[in-house]
Amino acid sequence: MNDHSDYTVSIHYDRRLFRQDIAGSQAHAAMLAGQGIISQQDADDIIAGLDAVQDEIAGGTFPWDAGLEDLHMNIERRLTDLIGPAAGRLHTGRSRNDQIALDMRLYTREVIADTIAGLRGVQAALVGRAERYPATVMPGYTHLQRAQPVLFAHHMLAYFEMLQRDIGRFADCAERLDVMPLGSGALAGVPYPTDRRAVADALGFADISANSMDAVSDRDFLVEYHSAAAIAMMHVSRLAEEIVIWSSREFEFVRLANEFTTGSSIMPQKRNPDFAEIARGKTGRVYGHLMGILTVLKGLPLTYNRDLQEDKEGFFDTADTVLATLRVFADMLGGMELNAGRVEALAGESYMLATDLADYLVGKGVPFREAHGIMRRLCLYCETSGRGLSDLPIDAYRNFAPQFDADVYDITAAASVVARDNPGGTAPGRVADGLARARGILAEAGY
Amino acid sequence: MNDHSDYTVSIHYDRRLFRQDIAGSQAHAAMLAGQGIISQQDADDIIAGLDAVQDEIAGGTFPWDAGLEDLHMNIERRLTDLIGPAAGRLHTGRSRNDQIALDMRLYTREVIADTIAGLRGVQAALVGRAERYPATVMPGYTHLQRAQPVLFAHHMLAYFEMLQRDIGRFADCAERLDVMPLGSGALAGVPYPTDRRAVADALGFADISANSMDAVSDRDFLVEYHSAAAIAMMHVSRLAEEIVIWSSREFEFVRLANEFTTGSSIMPQKRNPDFAEIARGKTGRVYGHLMGILTVLKGLPLTYNRDLQEDKEGFFDTADTVLATLRVFADMLGGMELNAGRVEALAGESYMLATDLADYLVGKGVPFREAHGIMRRLCLYCETSGRGLSDLPIDAYRNFAPQFDADVYDITAAASVVARDNPGGTAPGRVADGLARARGILAEAGY
Amino acid sequence: MNDHSDYTVSIHYDRRLFRQDIAGSQAHAAMLAGQGIISQQDADDIIAGLDAVQDEIAGGTFPWDAGLEDLHMNIERRLTDLIGPAAGRLHTGRSRNDQIALDMRLYTREVIADTIAGLRGVQAALVGRAERYPATVMPGYTHLQRAQPVLFAHHMLAYFEMLQRDIGRFADCAERLDVMPLGSGALAGVPYPTDRRAVADALGFADISANSMDAVSDRDFLVEYHSAAAIAMMHVSRLAEEIVIWSSREFEFVRLANEFTTGSSIMPQKRNPDFAEIARGKTGRVYGHLMGILTVLKGLPLTYNRDLQEDKEGFFDTADTVLATLRVFADMLGGMELNAGRVEALAGESYMLATDLADYLVGKGVPFREAHGIMRRLCLYCETSGRGLSDLPIDAYRNFAPQFDADVYDITAAASVVARDNPGGTAPGRVADGLARARGILAEAGY
Amino acid sequence: MNDHSDYTVSIHYDRRLFRQDIAGSQAHAAMLAGQGIISQQDADDIIAGLDAVQDEIAGGTFPWDAGLEDLHMNIERRLTDLIGPAAGRLHTGRSRNDQIALDMRLYTREVIADTIAGLRGVQAALVGRAERYPATVMPGYTHLQRAQPVLFAHHMLAYFEMLQRDIGRFADCAERLDVMPLGSGALAGVPYPTDRRAVADALGFADISANSMDAVSDRDFLVEYHSAAAIAMMHVSRLAEEIVIWSSREFEFVRLANEFTTGSSIMPQKRNPDFAEIARGKTGRVYGHLMGILTVLKGLPLTYNRDLQEDKEGFFDTADTVLATLRVFADMLGGMELNAGRVEALAGESYMLATDLADYLVGKGVPFREAHGIMRRLCLYCETSGRGLSDLPIDAYRNFAPQFDADVYDITAAASVVARDNPGGTAPGRVADGLARARGILAEAGY
Repeated sequence: MNDHSDYTVSIHYDRRLFRQDIAGSQAHAAMLAGQGIISQQDADDIIAGLDAVQDEIAGGTFPWDAGLEDLHMNIERRLTDLIGPAAGRLHTGRSRNDQIALDMRLYTREVIADTIAGLRGVQAALVGRAERYPATVMPGYTHLQRAQPVLFAHHMLAYFEMLQRDIGRFADCAERLDVMPLGSGALAGVPYPTDRRAVADALGFADISANSMDAVSDRDFLVEYHSAAAIAMMHVSRLAEEIVIWSSREFEFVRLANEFTTGSSIMPQKRNPDFAEIARGKTGRVYGHLMGILTVLKGLPLTYNRDLQEDKEGFFDTADTVLATLRVFADMLGGMELNAGRVEALAGESYMLATDLADYLVGKGVPFREAHGIMRRLCLYCETSGRGLSDLPIDAYRNFAPQFDADVYDITAAASVVARDNPGGTAPGRVADGLARARGILAEAGY
Repeated sequence: MNDHSDYTVSIHYDRRLFRQDIAGSQAHAAMLAGQGIISQQDADDIIAGLDAVQDEIAGGTFPWDAGLEDLHMNIERRLTDLIGPAAGRLHTGRSRNDQIALDMRLYTREVIADTIAGLRGVQAALVGRAERYPATVMPGYTHLQRAQPVLFAHHMLAYFEMLQRDIGRFADCAERLDVMPLGSGALAGVPYPTDRRAVADALGFADISANSMDAVSDRDFLVEYHSAAAIAMMHVSRLAEEIVIWSSREFEFVRLANEFTTGSSIMPQKRNPDFAEIARGKTGRVYGHLMGILTVLKGLPLTYNRDLQEDKEGFFDTADTVLATLRVFADMLGGMELNAGRVEALAGESYMLATDLADYLVGKGVPFREAHGIMRRLCLYCETSGRGLSDLPIDAYRNFAPQFDADVYDITAAASVVARDNPGGTAPGRVADGLARARGILAEAGY
Repeated sequence: MNDHSDYTVSIHYDRRLFRQDIAGSQAHAAMLAGQGIISQQDADDIIAGLDAVQDEIAGGTFPWDAGLEDLHMNIERRLTDLIGPAAGRLHTGRSRNDQIALDMRLYTREVIADTIAGLRGVQAALVGRAERYPATVMPGYTHLQRAQPVLFAHHMLAYFEMLQRDIGRFADCAERLDVMPLGSGALAGVPYPTDRRAVADALGFADISANSMDAVSDRDFLVEYHSAAAIAMMHVSRLAEEIVIWSSREFEFVRLANEFTTGSSIMPQKRNPDFAEIARGKTGRVYGHLMGILTVLKGLPLTYNRDLQEDKEGFFDTADTVLATLRVFADMLGGMELNAGRVEALAGESYMLATDLADYLVGKGVPFREAHGIMRRLCLYCETSGRGLSDLPIDAYRNFAPQFDADVYDITAAASVVARDNPGGTAPGRVADGLARARGILAEAGY
Repeated sequence: MNDHSDYTVSIHYDRRLFRQDIAGSQAHAAMLAGQGIISQQDADDIIAGLDAVQDEIAGGTFPWDAGLEDLHMNIERRLTDLIGPAAGRLHTGRSRNDQIALDMRLYTREVIADTIAGLRGVQAALVGRAERYPATVMPGYTHLQRAQPVLFAHHMLAYFEMLQRDIGRFADCAERLDVMPLGSGALAGVPYPTDRRAVADALGFADISANSMDAVSDRDFLVEYHSAAAIAMMHVSRLAEEIVIWSSREFEFVRLANEFTTGSSIMPQKRNPDFAEIARGKTGRVYGHLMGILTVLKGLPLTYNRDLQEDKEGFFDTADTVLATLRVFADMLGGMELNAGRVEALAGESYMLATDLADYLVGKGVPFREAHGIMRRLCLYCETSGRGLSDLPIDAYRNFAPQFDADVYDITAAASVVARDNPGGTAPGRVADGLARARGILAEAGY
C-alpha cells in the first residue's frame, strides 16, 4: 500500500495564513487570561512565543513539518518547543473548526482591501486616459459595427462605472464577512466563560457570529468573493478584448507600451497584446474556481466536513490572479496611446450620422418612425448610387423629405456628440461631468 | 435554404416583461410631453393605448406575432393599430437598447422582492420548527459523525443565519441595480432635452445611470442575482441533504408531511423525500445558469451585442426555480415532525461527551492538550473493554487522572448543552436569545 | 398551505419522449408475450392500444393530465381507457426507473444522429466556401495580428477538422450509450424470465446493461453529450467571433447574406451579424447546462434519486440549441461572400513575409537563429526609415547579409503560401489535398 | 511602474513538460538531418546536447532562468551553452506554436495512460471487495430509502461499470489526440522539405495533423480530458458519499482502515472518513477546471492567441487530483470492511419484500397493477396494526387476496435476491457472471 498522507496535507498552501492564524491565537490567549481561564503569565508566554514563531516564518527559518499536516499544528508544535507546556493551554475553548474559519475571514478581509485598491488603480488609469484625450471623437460600436460617434473619454468612463460596481460588491462582501467566528468551538460553542466580543474588538471585527453551527460551516464569504471576482474579471475580459481588437492592424486605434506587447522575433509589425490576451484567458480560471467552490459546498450536511479544506487553493489562486491582473491593467492603460487622428477620421463616416439625421427630421415635426423610414430610403439611395450622405446636394435630400434644409450639413460627428447632451450622454459637457464625478470618487477614496 | 427566423425571435420568453415594458413606455411618454418633445395629446393617447394593450395581454386577447420578433415591436405595432400615427412618436429619444435594459431592471427588482419574501417565509418556518422543539437535544455532527450534543432549535437557526445573509446579498443587488438606464439611447445618449430624473422618479428608481455606453451593455445585476441565487440554492441543497438523510430508516430523525413525500405504490415504509431531492437537484440548473451568463458576457466588446439577448431565459428559469423552491421549503419545513424521542436518546451516547470530560479536567487545572491526552487513553480503554463512559466506576476514572470526582457523572448530554453558554453557543438560554433575535428580524421585516 | 404539486410534475417536458416511451413499451410487451409472461392476446391489445395512443399524441388529441405527473402515467392511464385491464399487465417486470433510462437512451440516440447530421451540414458548407475561393490568399493571424499569408480555403478547412473531431466525440457517445437498460427493474433486476436481448434487438441496441443498479442511475451518456456539445459550441463560437470581426468595417473581409444580418432601421452600413452573435451567446447556455448536470450528479448515492429528474430540461435545451445553431451556420456560411480583393491586398503586406525572408537565408546556409537576428535588424531598419521590405534595393539587403540576392524579390504572399508545401500546410496543392480528403469524408458519410 | 514580467512567465509550471519537449526536439533534429535540412553532425550534437540538458533537469542542476519566460527558451539557451551555434539550427522549420502543441499532446498521452491505470486499480479493488463478500445481502436503496435487497457484490460492481465507461472515454480521448502537430509552423506550415510522418513515427503517433491552422490552436484533447475527468470524479464523489453515509453511526455499514480515517483526538467513536470527504470535495476543482478551459477557448479567433497559455495549470491540477484520488480509493477500498451481520439483518426488513409479494401474485395470475393495489392495502394494514409482513398469518393474507398460499413465507431477502435472475440482476449467479466478466476485463488489461 502506498502512503497517502499527502492527500490530506494542507501545509503547502495554508501556510500563507500564518499571520492571521497567529493574530487570532494572540487575541484568543489575551482573552483567556482576561477572563481568568488561563493565567496572565501563560498568556504572556504564548503571545511572546507566537511573536517568535511569526518572526521565524517571516524570516524563512521556521521548521515546517508536513507530517503535522496543517498550519495550526505546525505552529502549536513549535510554540511548545519554544515555551513549553503553557502552549498546551492555548487551544482551550477553541477548535480547529472555528480557528480556520477565523483565519480565512481575516485573510479574505485583507484580500478584499487589496482588491479594492487594485480596482481603484485601474479606475485611476481609465480616468487618466480620459483626461489625456478629453475631446477625441471615435466611432462607437454596437455589434462591432460602427454605430454613432462617441468621445473616447466616454468609452473609458464606461469601464470606470463597471469597476465602481465591482468595488461595491467587494465592499458588501467585506461587510458581510465582518463577524468573528471564534468561540464556536467544534460546532456547539465552548464551555468556558469566554468573551467573544473582546476577541472581535481585538481583531477589528464589527460583530460576532450568531450561531456556532453556522459559523464553523459558513464559507459564503468565499463564494461571494469568487463571484465578485468573476464579474470583475468579466469586465476586464471585455476591456482586454477591445484592446486586442484595437491593436489589430485593421483597427489600429491604440498603441500599447512595449512592456505590454510581445514582438515577434522578426516581424516588427507584430505588437502582440499578450498581456491583454493572458488577462482575457485568466477569466477562465476565475470562473472555474467559482464553480469549484459552489460544487464543493453543494449538498454538504452540517457542520464541518473535510470537503471544506478545498476552500483554499482556488480562492488563493483567484485572489492572486485578480490582484496581478489589476496591477497589469493599471499600468498597461497608463501607457496606452490612442491613435487620435485615425479614430477621429473614422468617426466622420457619414452613415454613422443617419440617426442624427432622423432626429433632425423629428425636430422638424416628423414622427420618429416616419423619419426613420425616410432615412432608410435615403441611405439606400446613397449606397446604391455610391455616395456618402455628406456629399448629397440639398435637392437630393429634399427629394426624400421637404423638411431638409441647408442646416443639414451642420450634422457632423462633432455635432452628433455635442447633441447628446443628457446626463450620461456623450456630449463633452456631460463627459466632463462624468470625469469630475469619477475624480471625486477617487479623491474621496484617497486616490 | 431553411427559414431561420426563429433563431433570433425572443417573443416567446420576453413577453413576460410586458408590464415592465409598458410602465417604462408610459413614463417615457409622460416625460416627453412634460419636456415638450411630443404633445400632451400624443402622450395621453399613447398612455391610454398602452393601458389597453396591457389589458389585452393580461386578458389573453393580444394578437402576438412572432414575425415581429420581440415584445417591443409587438406592443408598438398594436399601439399603432389602436391609436394611429401618434404611436410612432413613442420611440423618440429611446432605442431598444436602453428600453430592454430598463425592462430587465424593473423586472429584476420585482423578482428580488419576491425572492426576499420567499427567504423570509423559509426563515419563519425554521423559527417555527425551533419553537416547536425548543429544548430537544440531538446529536450534532461533523463529518457526518456524531460529535457533540446540540439543540435541534440551534440547528434550525443555523439555517436562519444562512438565509439572513442571502437576503443581504439580494438586497445589495437590488440597491446596485436601482439606477434608471433610459435616455442612454442606442449607446451614446439622445439628442433631445429629456428629463431622465423624472422618468426615474416615475418608475421609483433612486438614481439614473451615469454613462450611456455602460448602461446599454451592463448586465451585472443579472449576474449578481444569479450568484446570490446560487449561494441560496447551495444553502437549500444542504438542508435538503439533511432532510434526505434524516428521513432514512437508519436515521429516522424527521417525518415529512405526506404532501412532501412520494410513497412507493406498494412499500409503505417508503416515504421518499422527493421534494427535498428535486430541490437538491435544482441546485444544478441554478449553478448552470450562473455559468451560462458569465460565459455570455466574457470578452464582449462594448456596447450592445446581440449575445445579450441570451440574458433572459436562464435568468427567468433561475428566478422561477428559486421562488418555487422557497415556497416548497416554507411549507415542507412547516410540517416536518421531529422524532424527538429518538434524537434525544442518541444524543446521550456517552462518547459524544468526551470533549466535555476533557473540559472538565481543564476546569480542574489540567492543561488542555494534556486533558485531551487523558481522555484519549480513557476512551480507548472503554472501547477495548466494551464499556461506555457513563458506566465506568469512579475508580476507573481516577486511574487515568486523580482530578476526576463524583461530579463527573453530572456530565450528560443536557449538561453538555447547558455548558456551551456563550453567545452563539447551543446552551438553551443562548438559543432562546437566537430565537428572540430571529423573531425580531422577522417582525421588523413584517413577518 | 399552497399546492406544490407542480414542483414534481414533469409532463410539460417529458412528453417529448412519447415515441420512445411507446416504442419501448411495445418491445417490452412483445417480449413478455414471447416469454409467456403475459398472453399473446394481451400483448397484441397493448401494442395496438399504444399505436392508438401515439396517434392521439401526434395528432394533438391526447388528453394530457398534469395530475398524473409524468409521461408514463399519462400513457398507461390512457391505455387502460382504451383496452381495459390488460393495460395493467404492461408494467410487469419493469419499473419507472428502468423505463425512463430506456426512453432517454432512445431519445439521445436520435439526437446524436441529428447532431452529427448537423455537423456534416456545416462541414459541407465550409468545404463549399473553400471550393468557392480555392486560391484566394488572405492574412493569417496570430494574436489577431497579421502573421503570415494563408489560403482562405485553408482557414475554412481548419474548422472542418474541428467539426470532424466533434463528430468523433458524438459517435463515441452513441456507441457507449448503446446498451439497453430495461430489465433492471427498480434497482435489483426483475423476478420474471424476461429476455432482455430480445428487447435490445427489437429496439436496435447492440448490448444490454451489465448491472441493474448502475443501469437505473447512470446518466453518463447525457453528461457526455453535454460535454461534446460544449466543445462543438466552443468551435462555433470561434467561427462566430471571426465572422463578427470579419464583418466589421475595419476588417470588411466577408459579407453575409441579408437573412443573416439585421440592418439597423436607418443605418445602411449596419449589417449586424446577429445570427453569429446569438450563436456565440448560446455557447453560454450549453456550457451552463453541462455544469448543471454535473452538479446534479455530484455526490448522489446509488441508485435512483429524484434529483435525476433534473436530467431532462437542460439536455433538451442543449440539443435544441446545438441543432438550431448548426442549421443556421450551414446556411449562413453557404451565403457568406469573401471580399477577395481586399484580403488579397492585405496579404501582400511586406512585413508578413519576414519569416519567409529568414527562411530564405536559412536556405542559403545561415543558421536559423542567426537568420532571425538579421531579419529583426532589417525590419527595424525598414520601420525606422518608413519603407516596406519590398521597396528596399538589393544593396540595402546586402548591408544586412551578403547572402541576399535578386531572387529575394520573388518572395511574395503567393510565393510564401506556395512554399509551405508540407502535409497540413497552406500550399495550394496541400490545401487541394485537404479539400479532396474533406470531400471524401463527406461522401463516405453520404453528403 | 511595476515590473509585470511575472504575468506572462510560465516556466514555473511548463517545466514539467521537459521530457516531452526534449523528445520532440530530438525527433525533429533527427528528421531535419534525415531530410538534409541540417547536417548529420549538427543533429548528433543537438541530440547529445539535449540528452545532457535532460540529465541536468532530472538531476536538479539545470540553471532555470525565469527571465527566459518558458521551457523552450530555457532549454534552447542551455543547449547553445553546451554545443554552440549548432543549437541555432534546431528551431529550423518549427515554431513555438507547434512545439507546445506537440509537448502537450505527448504529456496528455502519458497522463491518460496513468489515469486508465488508476481506474483499473480502483476497479480491481471493487472486484476484490465483491469477492470478499460474494453472498452478503444488504438493503438496496432508492431515494436513500431501503427499497429491495441486493448483494453487496452487486453494489460494488455497479461502480465497476461506471469506471469501465470512464476508461472508454479516456481511451477515446487518447485515440483522438494521437496526431502529431509538428510541422505546422506558426500557423501556415513550414517552407522546408520536412518529413512529418517520420517525426510521428519516431514519437509513436498514429497520424499527422491535417491542417496547420487547426493544429496550433486545437486544445480539444485537453477539454476532452477535463470532461472525462469530471465524469470520473462525479463517480468517485458518489462512492465517497456512500462511504461517508455508510460510516455514520446510524448506518454503520462499513469500517475503513485507520489510515483512511481521522480520529478525533478524544472521541474514539469518531472515525471521520476524511479521505472520502476530501475526494468528494476535490470534485469541485475538477469541475471548475473544466469550466475554466471552456471559458478560455470560447470565442477565440484563429490561430494562436496567448490565452492558450492558460491551458496548462488547470490541466496539471486536474490530472494530479484524479491520479491521487484514484490511488487513494484503490487502497481505501482494499481495506474497507463490511459490517456483514448488520447489513444482512437490515436486508430482512419485511417491507422491502412487498414488491416480491406483488410479483408473487402476478405469478398466480393477478394483473400487475391489481397485485400492486392489493399489496398497498396489505401493507397499510400491517402498518396500522403494527405488524410486519412476515408476522401475518396466512388467513390475514387471504383476506386481501385468495391467491396467497403457504409458500408466501418463502419470500425472504435471500429469496428476493435469488429471484432477480436476469442478466444484470442481483441474483447470485448473475453477480457471479458479473464478477467473472469484470475479472476478465481486468485480466485482458493486464491486471
